[in-house]
Amino acid sequence: MNAEIIAVGSELLTPARLDTNSLYLTGQLNDLGVEVVTKTVVGDDLERLAAVIQQAVRRTPIVLVTGGLGPTEDDVTREAASRALGRPLEFRQEICEAIEARFARMGRKMAEINRRQAYVLAGAEVLPNPNGTAPGQWIERDGTAVALLPGPPAELKPMFEAECLPRLRRLVPPLVIRTRFYRVAGMPESDLDQLISPVYRQYTNPVTTILAAPGDIQIHLRARCTTEAEGERLLAEVGSQIEALLGDRIYSRSGEPLEEVTGNLLRRAGATLCVAESCTGGLLAERITSVPGSSEYFLGGFLVYNNRMKSSLLGVDGELIARHGAVSEPVAEAMAAGARGRTGATWAVSLTGVAGPGGGSENKPVGTVVIGLAGPKSARAQTFRFLGSRERVRAMAAQTALDLVRRALSES
Amino acid sequence: MNAEIIAVGSELLTPARLDTNSLYLTGQLNDLGVEVVTKTVVGDDLERLAAVIQQAVRRTPIVLVTGGLGPTEDDVTREAASRALGRPLEFRQEICEAIEARFARMGRKMAEINRRQAYVLAGAEVLPNPNGTAPGQWIERDGTAVALLPGPPAELKPMFEAECLPRLRRLVPPLVIRTRFYRVAGMPESDLDQLISPVYRQYTNPVTTILAAPGDIQIHLRARCTTEAEGERLLAEVGSQIEALLGDRIYSRSGEPLEEVTGNLLRRAGATLCVAESCTGGLLAERITSVPGSSEYFLGGFLVYNNRMKSSLLGVDGELIARHGAVSEPVAEAMAAGARGRTGATWAVSLTGVAGPGGGSENKPVGTVVIGLAGPKSARAQTFRFLGSRERVRAMAAQTALDLVRRALSES
Repeated sequence: MNAEIIAVGSELLTPARLDTNSLYLTGQLNDLGVEVVTKTVVGDDLERLAAVIQQAVRRTPIVLVTGGLGPTEDDVTREAASRALGRPLEFRQEICEAIEARFARMGRKMAEINRRQAYVLAGAEVLPNPNGTAPGQWIERDGTAVALLPGPPAELKPMFEAECLPRLRRLVPPLVIRTRFYRVAGMPESDLDQLISPVYRQYTNPVTTILAAPGDIQIHLRARCTTEAEGERLLAEVGSQIEALLGDRIYSRSGEPLEEVTGNLLRRAGATLCVAESCTGGLLAERITSVPGSSEYFLGGFLVYNNRMKSSLLGVDGELIARHGAVSEPVAEAMAAGARGRTGATWAVSLTGVAGPGGGSENKPVGTVVIGLAGPKSARAQTFRFLGSRERVRAMAAQTALDLVRRALSES
Repeated sequence: MNAEIIAVGSELLTPARLDTNSLYLTGQLNDLGVEVVTKTVVGDDLERLAAVIQQAVRRTPIVLVTGGLGPTEDDVTREAASRALGRPLEFRQEICEAIEARFARMGRKMAEINRRQAYVLAGAEVLPNPNGTAPGQWIERDGTAVALLPGPPAELKPMFEAECLPRLRRLVPPLVIRTRFYRVAGMPESDLDQLISPVYRQYTNPVTTILAAPGDIQIHLRARCTTEAEGERLLAEVGSQIEALLGDRIYSRSGEPLEEVTGNLLRRAGATLCVAESCTGGLLAERITSVPGSSEYFLGGFLVYNNRMKSSLLGVDGELIARHGAVSEPVAEAMAAGARGRTGATWAVSLTGVAGPGGGSENKPVGTVVIGLAGPKSARAQTFRFLGSRERVRAMAAQTALDLVRRALSES
């Protein structure tokens, strides 16, 4: 079954704003087995909106209209839908009273202008709005449904879930959705796709979607079936092949970010972690501490943004820096060992590198990053070369450092 | 003058993707004085796309279609436009040869399927595509223009700028755009709007747009005039009133982020900065070091994620922590002083607080953050209460700390 989404509001036609409600609605509709076939954004223009609604209703059985239900002259959705569907607007005293009561609860008097929100298309079901003044409307005839919904997400989402989902389930044949959500570190997207596309291309169900961020790839599998067991069987069939190909590069099977997975490993091992960051300037620690409860395993660490700080805060020998350069494996190793010694953490991870755009040399071009890791048994360091902007190099470096800690914990 | 944008591609109708090309195109069109009045996203569906193009051309003088110009069966834009505009498709040998030559340059042979890309609507101007195989098309009649453009941004943008802008300038009366871009810290959006809306609401030109992030508000003024001088006069008229109302809460008049403004003040003063972060866990340093060249004024610092680290790394007296608690002004002050002493920086800023979701108490609820600042003359600390999620509390805390450093540097 097909649906169209129409978003109303001139602010959605500016260079800085997109209609993101449609992403939420598309996800909800897809979960019912409904495909979105057209999305339209229209300004606060009565004639144009009426024409768009009319065209949508003629060609598509489910039409969701968001926005334009406010109290001002700019809010034209009620009037446009009335024209498009050929149904007059009727004043409903009980809606007006509900809006008045809402204002009264906030200790205010309803403005006269809000009476506009009490008009409803003839024959429409009113969708209550516990989170705002504008009620929604549901107009259904001959298997075609039009919903008028408020634009603010905090009003739209609860209304859609409470009022539209049950009504849509009546219209649409039932469907079960099962999903699996892998996350993979340490692999470029193109390599990953080359490796696993021969598997997932064989299946149209589950649908496989790959989303890539620097150093972090998400693989979503989404099976649509008539029973849960059938969905799980399909996910297992495709998932087991993907898992066999990717091995321990998969760090999560249920979508948690790497900082959470690594944190859970530390907690489980009763271990603690500290950092010594140069080129990432706090980004690694920021990610680690973005997880609530990270103080159980994260002690803190050192930001050493020049050579003097590497020596004075971490005790890295100035001669070592002079001999090998600040961006070198011996220095990264000494940074990690110094941080571990000064904090007493079980593990210490260090980063030193050239984030760019300046500071590169022939031997150590922009993007060169050395990551050190000191643990209960030994300290070691490894050199990486990341491509791209300063932001991307720093993101890749922090991600790779987290992944090295994860791997060390998985091995030990 | 009005325009419509039609984006083609079934992938743009999934829950994870939005048509972002339209933001770029809207900005470009607005700069010409053209308003976007409708945006539509259609899947790879010939009938539906043909109907959408036909409706758009009937009601709007400029119609930009993006995507669907590739070589596969899924790419239906050429055929749909042919039907909608009633113009047959004609094979152009010279386009086919250009595509063959492009493949040859990459040492490959053109696939037979790419011949589809050499079909052009009768009477269309061909828009060369130096960045891909699909040429664009421009169809103009009686002051109405339709452009067929490739979907990949790296192909679309150069083609739009080289081919469409000059053609649109012929159709549209000339216009000059002047902008001003304020950034403000330390004020909630609602307070700011209440203060300055009596000013900017008086003007439809310049248009004022307010964008708010936690602790950071952007105010864009955009004047559209026939001369530069007139544009600057309008910006100065509105801008001077806004500046008078907001005073030193404005930290930038040209859009730089706070970390860059603060960094420039440090550089100009020949001063250095270090941090001692607890609840923000590296976020403040990460922001400071996101600016290229920040090593000129940023030395580094300490991440002290528990009481023991505050004492061992910064020398904060354990008794002080026991007496006042880790989240207190005396401790924040001691953290800043300790960091300053250990690094030799001119300024040290410290953060200690309850980021949540756990860890709050009646006296120190979630969102309580104390920021300390130690400088050449003295050390002081101030307590704040931020609302919202862990992420928001941390973001507000880092922003406020940066703004305190900025203010201290502006005063000194």
